[in-house]
Amino acid sequence: MIVTCLDMEGVLVPEIWINVAQRTGIDELRLTTRDISDYHELMKHRLRLLDEHQITLSAIQEVIAAMGPYPDAPDFLAWLRERSQVIVLSDTFYEFASPLVKQLHHATLFCHSLEVENDRITGYRLRQEDSKREAVKALQQLNFKVISAGDSYNDTNMLTQADAGILINPPANVVEEFPQFPVVNSLGELRAAIEPLLESLAQ
Amino acid sequence: MIVTCLDMEGVLVPEIWINVAQRTGIDELRLTTRDISDYHELMKHRLRLLDEHQITLSAIQEVIAAMGPYPDAPDFLAWLRERSQVIVLSDTFYEFASPLVKQLHHATLFCHSLEVENDRITGYRLRQEDSKREAVKALQQLNFKVISAGDSYNDTNMLTQADAGILINPPANVVEEFPQFPVVNSLGELRAAIEPLLESLAQ
Repeated sequence: MIVTCLDMEGVLVPEIWINVAQRTGIDELRLTTRDISDYHELMKHRLRLLDEHQITLSAIQEVIAAMGPYPDAPDFLAWLRERSQVIVLSDTFYEFASPLVKQLHHATLFCHSLEVENDRITGYRLRQEDSKREAVKALQQLNFKVISAGDSYNDTNMLTQADAGILINPPANVVEEFPQFPVVNSLGELRAAIEPLLESLAQ
Repeated sequence: MIVTCLDMEGVLVPEIWINVAQRTGIDELRLTTRDISDYHELMKHRLRLLDEHQITLSAIQEVIAAMGPYPDAPDFLAWLRERSQVIVLSDTFYEFASPLVKQLHHATLFCHSLEVENDRITGYRLRQEDSKREAVKALQQLNFKVISAGDSYNDTNMLTQADAGILINPPANVVEEFPQFPVVNSLGELRAAIEPLLESLAQ
Protein backbone atom coordinates (compact mmCIF):
# COMPACT_ATOMS: atom_id res chain seq x y z
CA MET A 1 0.00 0.00 0.00
CA ILE A 2 1.76 3.06 -1.32
CA VAL A 3 1.48 6.83 -1.01
CA THR A 4 3.43 9.03 -3.42
CA CYS A 5 4.40 12.40 -1.92
CA LEU A 6 5.14 15.08 -4.46
CA ASP A 7 6.59 18.52 -4.01
CA MET A 8 4.45 21.12 -5.78
CA GLU A 9 6.49 24.13 -6.96
CA GLY A 10 9.03 23.22 -9.60
CA VAL A 11 7.42 19.78 -10.01
CA LEU A 12 3.72 20.30 -10.77
CA VAL A 13 3.54 24.09 -11.00
CA PRO A 14 6.05 26.90 -11.65
CA GLU A 15 7.70 28.71 -8.73
CA ILE A 16 4.99 30.91 -7.27
CA TRP A 17 7.05 33.82 -5.88
CA ILE A 18 9.09 34.12 -9.08
CA ASN A 19 5.89 34.39 -11.11
CA VAL A 20 4.40 36.90 -8.71
CA ALA A 21 7.62 38.93 -9.02
CA GLN A 22 7.45 38.80 -12.82
CA ARG A 23 3.81 39.73 -13.08
CA THR A 24 3.86 42.46 -10.44
CA GLY A 25 7.20 43.86 -11.58
CA ILE A 26 8.54 43.75 -8.00
CA ASP A 27 11.96 42.24 -8.63
CA GLU A 28 12.83 41.85 -4.96
CA LEU A 29 10.12 39.20 -4.64
CA ARG A 30 12.46 36.91 -6.56
CA LEU A 31 14.69 36.48 -3.53
CA THR A 32 14.66 32.93 -2.19
CA THR A 33 16.30 31.13 0.74
CA ARG A 34 19.45 31.14 -1.38
CA ASP A 35 19.56 34.92 -0.91
CA ILE A 36 18.09 35.25 2.61
CA SER A 37 18.85 31.96 4.30
CA ASP A 38 16.47 32.43 7.25
CA TYR A 39 13.00 31.48 6.03
CA HIS A 40 11.20 33.68 8.55
CA GLU A 41 13.34 36.70 7.58
CA LEU A 42 12.60 36.01 3.93
CA MET A 43 8.84 35.81 4.56
CA LYS A 44 8.88 39.03 6.58
CA HIS A 45 10.69 40.69 3.69
CA ARG A 46 8.13 39.39 1.18
CA LEU A 47 5.13 40.46 3.25
CA ARG A 48 6.66 43.94 3.75
CA LEU A 49 7.09 44.28 -0.02
CA LEU A 50 3.48 43.21 -0.69
CA ASP A 51 2.31 45.69 1.89
CA GLU A 52 4.41 48.55 0.49
CA HIS A 53 3.08 47.93 -3.00
CA GLN A 54 -0.46 47.39 -1.67
CA ILE A 55 -0.76 44.00 -3.32
CA THR A 56 -3.77 42.10 -2.01
CA LEU A 57 -4.23 38.35 -1.62
CA SER A 58 -6.83 38.31 -4.39
CA ALA A 59 -4.41 40.08 -6.76
CA ILE A 60 -1.81 37.39 -6.07
CA GLN A 61 -4.43 34.67 -6.49
CA GLU A 62 -5.27 36.07 -9.92
CA VAL A 63 -1.61 35.92 -10.91
CA ILE A 64 -1.36 32.34 -9.66
CA ALA A 65 -4.57 31.21 -11.37
CA ALA A 66 -3.36 32.69 -14.66
CA MET A 67 0.03 31.03 -14.26
CA GLY A 68 -1.54 27.56 -14.00
CA PRO A 69 0.24 24.23 -13.46
CA TYR A 70 2.80 22.80 -15.88
CA PRO A 71 0.93 21.59 -18.98
CA ASP A 72 1.73 17.91 -18.41
CA ALA A 73 1.04 17.95 -14.65
CA PRO A 74 -2.73 17.18 -14.74
CA ASP A 75 -2.21 14.08 -16.91
CA PHE A 76 0.74 12.94 -14.83
CA LEU A 77 -1.32 13.23 -11.65
CA ALA A 78 -4.28 11.44 -13.23
CA TRP A 79 -1.98 8.57 -14.18
CA LEU A 80 -0.41 8.42 -10.71
CA ARG A 81 -3.72 8.60 -8.81
CA GLU A 82 -4.90 5.48 -10.63
CA ARG A 83 -1.86 3.65 -9.26
CA SER A 84 -1.16 4.95 -5.74
CA GLN A 85 -2.52 7.39 -3.25
CA VAL A 86 -1.00 10.82 -3.82
CA ILE A 87 -0.38 13.63 -1.36
CA VAL A 88 1.25 16.89 -2.45
CA LEU A 89 3.63 18.18 0.24
CA SER A 90 4.48 21.83 -0.18
CA ASP A 91 5.93 24.76 1.75
CA THR A 92 3.49 27.13 0.07
CA PHE A 93 0.20 28.35 1.59
CA TYR A 94 -3.32 27.04 0.99
CA GLU A 95 -4.46 30.52 -0.02
CA PHE A 96 -1.85 30.63 -2.81
CA ALA A 97 -2.25 27.01 -3.88
CA SER A 98 -6.04 26.90 -4.14
CA PRO A 99 -6.28 28.29 -7.72
CA LEU A 100 -3.67 25.72 -8.80
CA VAL A 101 -5.13 22.75 -6.96
CA LYS A 102 -8.40 23.29 -8.83
CA GLN A 103 -6.43 22.75 -12.02
CA LEU A 104 -4.84 19.60 -10.57
CA HIS A 105 -8.07 17.64 -9.95
CA HIS A 106 -8.11 18.85 -6.31
CA ALA A 107 -5.17 16.68 -5.29
CA THR A 108 -4.78 16.34 -1.53
CA LEU A 109 -2.34 19.01 -0.35
CA PHE A 110 -0.51 19.40 2.96
CA CYS A 111 1.01 22.87 3.28
CA HIS A 112 0.84 26.04 5.44
CA SER A 113 -1.60 28.91 5.76
CA LEU A 114 -1.67 32.70 5.63
CA GLU A 115 -3.18 35.18 8.03
CA VAL A 116 -5.37 37.54 6.07
CA GLU A 117 -7.29 40.65 7.10
CA ASN A 118 -9.50 42.41 4.55
CA ASP A 119 -7.63 40.80 1.67
CA ARG A 120 -4.28 41.98 3.11
CA ILE A 121 -1.73 39.30 4.04
CA THR A 122 -0.73 40.07 7.62
CA GLY A 123 1.22 36.96 8.51
CA TYR A 124 1.54 33.22 8.03
CA ARG A 125 1.28 30.04 10.03
CA LEU A 126 3.69 27.17 9.37
CA ARG A 127 1.84 23.96 10.14
CA GLN A 128 5.03 22.52 11.63
CA GLU A 129 8.79 22.59 11.18
CA ASP A 130 10.26 20.06 8.74
CA SER A 131 6.67 19.43 7.67
CA LYS A 132 7.45 17.35 4.59
CA ARG A 133 9.58 14.84 6.46
CA GLU A 134 7.05 14.67 9.31
CA ALA A 135 4.26 13.89 6.83
CA VAL A 136 6.25 11.05 5.26
CA LYS A 137 7.04 9.65 8.73
CA ALA A 138 3.37 9.80 9.72
CA LEU A 139 2.36 7.90 6.57
CA GLN A 140 4.98 5.25 7.25
CA GLN A 141 3.63 4.87 10.79
CA LEU A 142 0.29 4.10 9.13
CA ASN A 143 2.14 1.25 7.33
CA PHE A 144 2.26 2.88 3.94
CA LYS A 145 5.34 2.66 1.77
CA VAL A 146 6.22 6.14 0.56
CA ILE A 147 7.66 7.24 -2.78
CA SER A 148 8.73 10.86 -2.81
CA ALA A 149 9.82 13.30 -5.49
CA GLY A 150 11.00 16.90 -5.26
CA ASP A 151 13.28 19.38 -6.91
CA SER A 152 15.19 21.25 -4.27
CA TYR A 153 17.07 21.39 -1.03
CA ASN A 154 13.95 21.63 1.14
CA ASP A 155 12.78 18.29 -0.29
CA THR A 156 15.85 16.28 0.62
CA ASN A 157 14.62 15.47 4.13
CA MET A 158 11.43 13.93 2.81
CA LEU A 159 13.35 12.09 0.09
CA THR A 160 15.69 10.68 2.73
CA GLN A 161 12.78 9.65 4.95
CA ALA A 162 10.82 8.02 2.11
CA ASP A 163 11.20 4.39 1.06
CA ALA A 164 12.27 5.71 -2.35
CA GLY A 165 13.26 9.29 -3.18
CA ILE A 166 13.66 10.85 -6.63
CA LEU A 167 15.04 14.27 -7.59
CA ILE A 168 13.34 16.03 -10.48
CA ASN A 169 15.06 18.99 -12.21
CA PRO A 170 17.33 19.64 -9.22
CA PRO A 171 20.04 22.33 -9.12
CA ALA A 172 23.61 21.03 -9.47
CA ASN A 173 24.53 21.53 -5.81
CA VAL A 174 21.68 19.30 -4.65
CA VAL A 175 22.67 16.55 -7.09
CA GLU A 176 26.21 16.78 -5.81
CA GLU A 177 25.31 16.71 -2.14
CA PHE A 178 22.74 13.89 -2.50
CA PRO A 179 24.21 11.42 -5.00
CA GLN A 180 22.05 8.64 -3.52
CA PHE A 181 18.90 9.87 -5.28
CA PRO A 182 18.11 9.11 -8.92
CA VAL A 183 17.65 12.26 -11.01
CA VAL A 184 14.95 12.78 -13.64
CA ASN A 185 14.32 15.82 -15.80
CA SER A 186 10.65 15.71 -16.73
CA LEU A 187 7.33 14.36 -15.49
CA GLY A 188 7.57 11.73 -18.23
CA GLU A 189 10.88 10.54 -16.79
CA LEU A 190 9.43 10.71 -13.28
CA ARG A 191 6.62 8.42 -14.39
CA ALA A 192 9.14 5.96 -15.80
CA ALA A 193 11.08 6.07 -12.51
CA ILE A 194 7.96 5.58 -10.36
CA GLU A 195 6.48 2.71 -12.40
CA PRO A 196 8.89 -0.03 -11.23
CA LEU A 197 8.74 1.27 -7.64
CA LEU A 198 4.96 0.77 -7.58
CA GLU A 199 5.69 -2.89 -8.31
CA SER A 200 8.62 -3.43 -5.99
CA LEU A 201 7.24 -1.54 -2.98
CA ALA A 202 3.88 -3.31 -3.25
CA GLN A 203 5.59 -6.60 -2.34
CA MET B 1 -5.73 23.81 8.63
CA ILE B 2 -8.32 21.09 8.45
CA VAL B 3 -8.62 17.56 7.12
CA THR B 4 -12.05 15.95 6.88
CA CYS B 5 -11.95 12.16 7.27
CA LEU B 6 -14.96 10.37 5.81
CA ASP B 7 -16.00 6.77 6.08
CA MET B 8 -16.81 5.35 2.65
CA GLU B 9 -19.42 2.58 2.81
CA GLY B 10 -22.80 3.81 3.99
CA VAL B 11 -21.63 7.42 3.61
CA LEU B 12 -20.37 7.88 0.04
CA VAL B 13 -21.17 4.48 -1.47
CA PRO B 14 -23.56 1.63 -0.62
CA GLU B 15 -22.38 -1.30 1.49
CA ILE B 16 -20.13 -3.32 -0.81
CA TRP B 17 -20.64 -6.86 0.58
CA ILE B 18 -24.41 -6.47 0.69
CA ASN B 19 -24.43 -5.44 -2.97
CA VAL B 20 -22.12 -8.28 -3.92
CA ALA B 21 -24.49 -10.66 -2.07
CA GLN B 22 -27.50 -9.27 -3.93
CA ARG B 23 -25.94 -9.36 -7.34
CA THR B 24 -24.28 -12.77 -6.98
CA GLY B 25 -27.28 -14.31 -5.21
CA ILE B 26 -25.02 -15.62 -2.42
CA ASP B 27 -27.08 -14.64 0.59
CA GLU B 28 -24.46 -15.66 3.13
CA LEU B 29 -22.24 -12.80 1.91
CA ARG B 30 -24.66 -10.49 3.71
CA LEU B 31 -23.27 -11.49 7.08
CA THR B 32 -21.48 -8.65 8.85
CA THR B 33 -19.61 -8.26 12.13
CA ARG B 34 -23.04 -8.17 13.76
CA ASP B 35 -23.41 -11.85 12.80
CA ILE B 36 -19.79 -13.02 13.11
CA SER B 37 -18.19 -10.69 15.60
CA ASP B 38 -14.57 -11.66 14.85
CA TYR B 39 -13.55 -9.72 11.73
CA HIS B 40 -10.92 -12.25 10.67
CA GLU B 41 -13.42 -15.13 11.00
CA LEU B 42 -15.89 -13.14 8.94
CA MET B 43 -13.34 -12.46 6.20
CA LYS B 44 -12.29 -16.12 6.11
CA HIS B 45 -15.95 -17.03 5.72
CA ARG B 46 -16.41 -14.53 2.88
CA LEU B 47 -13.30 -15.65 1.01
CA ARG B 48 -14.35 -19.32 1.37
CA LEU B 49 -17.75 -18.47 -0.12
CA LEU B 50 -16.19 -16.60 -3.05
CA ASP B 51 -13.91 -19.54 -3.66
CA GLU B 52 -16.71 -22.11 -3.51
CA HIS B 53 -18.77 -20.13 -6.00
CA GLN B 54 -15.68 -19.42 -8.14
CA ILE B 55 -16.24 -15.68 -8.03
CA THR B 56 -13.21 -13.79 -9.30
CA LEU B 57 -11.94 -10.36 -8.26
CA SER B 58 -12.82 -8.94 -11.66
CA ALA B 59 -16.40 -10.25 -11.34
CA ILE B 60 -16.72 -8.46 -7.99
CA GLN B 61 -15.16 -5.31 -9.45
CA GLU B 62 -17.81 -5.33 -12.19
CA VAL B 63 -20.55 -5.55 -9.57
CA ILE B 64 -18.99 -2.70 -7.61
CA ALA B 65 -18.48 -0.49 -10.67
CA ALA B 66 -22.13 -1.00 -11.67
CA MET B 67 -23.28 -0.22 -8.15
CA GLY B 68 -21.59 3.21 -8.19
CA PRO B 69 -21.45 5.78 -5.37
CA TYR B 70 -24.56 7.41 -3.90
CA PRO B 71 -25.89 9.91 -6.47
CA ASP B 72 -25.17 12.98 -4.33
CA ALA B 73 -21.70 11.83 -3.20
CA PRO B 74 -19.61 13.28 -6.08
CA ASP B 75 -21.12 16.77 -5.63
CA PHE B 76 -20.76 16.58 -1.86
CA LEU B 77 -17.09 15.64 -2.21
CA ALA B 78 -16.46 18.37 -4.78
CA TRP B 79 -17.97 20.91 -2.37
CA LEU B 80 -15.90 19.63 0.56
CA ARG B 81 -12.60 19.46 -1.35
CA GLU B 82 -12.89 23.16 -2.12
CA ARG B 83 -13.04 23.83 1.61
CA SER B 84 -10.76 21.36 3.38
CA GLN B 85 -8.43 18.52 2.61
CA VAL B 86 -10.35 15.25 2.45
CA ILE B 87 -9.18 11.71 3.18
CA VAL B 88 -11.54 8.76 2.94
CA LEU B 89 -10.84 6.24 5.72
CA SER B 90 -12.32 2.84 5.03
CA ASP B 91 -12.06 -0.78 6.13
CA THR B 92 -12.57 -1.96 2.58
CA PHE B 93 -9.80 -3.00 0.16
CA TYR B 94 -8.17 -0.93 -2.58
CA GLU B 95 -9.04 -3.59 -5.14
CA PHE B 96 -12.75 -3.28 -4.32
CA ALA B 97 -12.75 0.50 -3.93
CA SER B 98 -10.92 1.40 -7.15
CA PRO B 99 -14.00 1.34 -9.44
CA LEU B 100 -15.82 3.59 -6.95
CA VAL B 101 -12.97 6.01 -6.32
CA LYS B 102 -12.87 6.72 -10.05
CA GLN B 103 -16.45 7.91 -9.74
CA LEU B 104 -15.50 10.05 -6.71
CA HIS B 105 -12.90 12.26 -8.44
CA HIS B 106 -10.11 9.97 -7.19
CA ALA B 107 -10.42 11.09 -3.59
CA THR B 108 -7.47 10.08 -1.42
CA LEU B 109 -8.30 6.77 0.25
CA PHE B 110 -6.62 4.99 3.15
CA CYS B 111 -7.81 1.38 3.41
CA HIS B 112 -6.53 -2.23 3.22
CA SER B 113 -5.50 -4.54 0.41
CA LEU B 114 -6.26 -7.99 -0.96
CA GLU B 115 -3.94 -10.80 -1.92
CA VAL B 116 -4.82 -11.92 -5.40
CA GLU B 117 -3.54 -14.80 -7.54
CA ASN B 118 -4.79 -15.18 -11.11
CA ASP B 119 -7.87 -13.08 -10.36
CA ARG B 120 -8.69 -15.27 -7.34
CA ILE B 121 -8.77 -13.57 -3.92
CA THR B 122 -6.51 -15.65 -1.70
CA GLY B 123 -6.22 -13.42 1.35
CA TYR B 124 -6.11 -9.87 2.64
CA ARG B 125 -3.73 -7.53 4.39
CA LEU B 126 -5.02 -5.11 7.00
CA ARG B 127 -2.79 -2.04 6.89
CA GLN B 128 -3.01 -1.78 10.67
CA GLU B 129 -5.41 -2.40 13.55
CA ASP B 130 -7.73 0.47 14.47
CA SER B 131 -6.57 2.06 11.25
CA LYS B 132 -9.14 4.86 11.13
CA ARG B 133 -8.27 6.17 14.58
CA GLU B 134 -4.54 5.86 13.87
CA ALA B 135 -4.95 7.92 10.69
CA VAL B 136 -6.79 10.70 12.55
CA LYS B 137 -4.08 10.70 15.25
CA ALA B 138 -1.33 10.92 12.64
CA LEU B 139 -3.02 13.91 10.98
CA GLN B 140 -3.37 15.64 14.33
CA GLN B 141 0.33 15.09 14.96
CA LEU B 142 0.90 16.97 11.71
CA ASN B 143 -1.04 19.85 13.34
CA PHE B 144 -4.21 19.43 11.34
CA LYS B 145 -7.61 19.79 12.95
CA VAL B 146 -9.73 16.80 11.97
CA ILE B 147 -13.45 16.62 11.26
CA SER B 148 -14.71 13.07 10.94
CA ALA B 149 -17.98 11.49 9.79
CA GLY B 150 -19.08 7.87 9.68
CA ASP B 151 -22.12 5.68 9.99
CA SER B 152 -21.32 2.73 12.18
CA TYR B 153 -19.68 1.18 15.18
CA ASN B 154 -16.28 0.83 13.50
CA ASP B 155 -16.19 4.61 12.99
CA THR B 156 -16.71 5.61 16.60
CA ASN B 157 -13.00 5.43 17.46
CA MET B 158 -12.11 7.88 14.72
CA LEU B 159 -15.04 10.12 15.67
CA THR B 160 -13.84 10.12 19.28
CA GLN B 161 -10.26 10.88 18.24
CA ALA B 162 -11.25 13.69 15.85
CA ASP B 163 -11.63 17.32 16.88
CA ALA B 164 -15.26 17.03 15.76
CA GLY B 165 -17.15 13.80 15.00
CA ILE B 166 -20.49 13.42 13.24
CA LEU B 167 -22.66 10.31 12.81
CA ILE B 168 -24.48 9.95 9.51
CA ASN B 169 -27.37 7.46 9.15
CA PRO B 170 -26.24 5.45 12.18
CA PRO B 171 -28.10 2.43 13.57
CA ALA B 172 -30.07 3.09 16.78
CA ASN B 173 -27.65 1.23 19.07
CA VAL B 174 -24.72 3.45 17.97
CA VAL B 175 -26.76 6.62 18.58
CA GLU B 176 -27.65 5.33 22.02
CA GLU B 177 -24.13 4.36 22.99
CA PHE B 178 -22.52 7.56 21.63
CA PRO B 179 -24.90 10.38 22.51
CA GLN B 180 -22.01 12.87 22.33
CA PHE B 181 -22.00 12.90 18.51
CA PRO B 182 -24.45 14.96 16.45
CA VAL B 183 -26.49 12.82 14.05
CA VAL B 184 -27.32 13.70 10.43
CA ASN B 185 -29.34 11.70 7.93
CA SER B 186 -28.13 12.80 4.51
CA LEU B 187 -25.07 14.27 2.79
CA GLY B 188 -26.99 17.56 2.60
CA GLU B 189 -27.33 17.56 6.38
CA LEU B 190 -23.70 16.53 6.74
CA ARG B 191 -22.68 19.53 4.66
CA ALA B 192 -24.73 21.81 6.91
CA ALA B 193 -23.07 20.26 9.97
CA ILE B 194 -19.55 20.59 8.55
CA GLU B 195 -19.91 24.18 7.35
CA PRO B 196 -19.72 25.90 10.78
CA LEU B 197 -16.91 23.53 11.87
CA LEU B 198 -14.75 24.68 8.95
CA GLU B 199 -15.07 28.18 10.42
CA SER B 200 -14.64 27.37 14.09
CA LEU B 201 -11.76 24.87 13.69
CA ALA B 202 -9.85 27.24 11.40
CA GLN B 203 -9.39 29.66 14.31
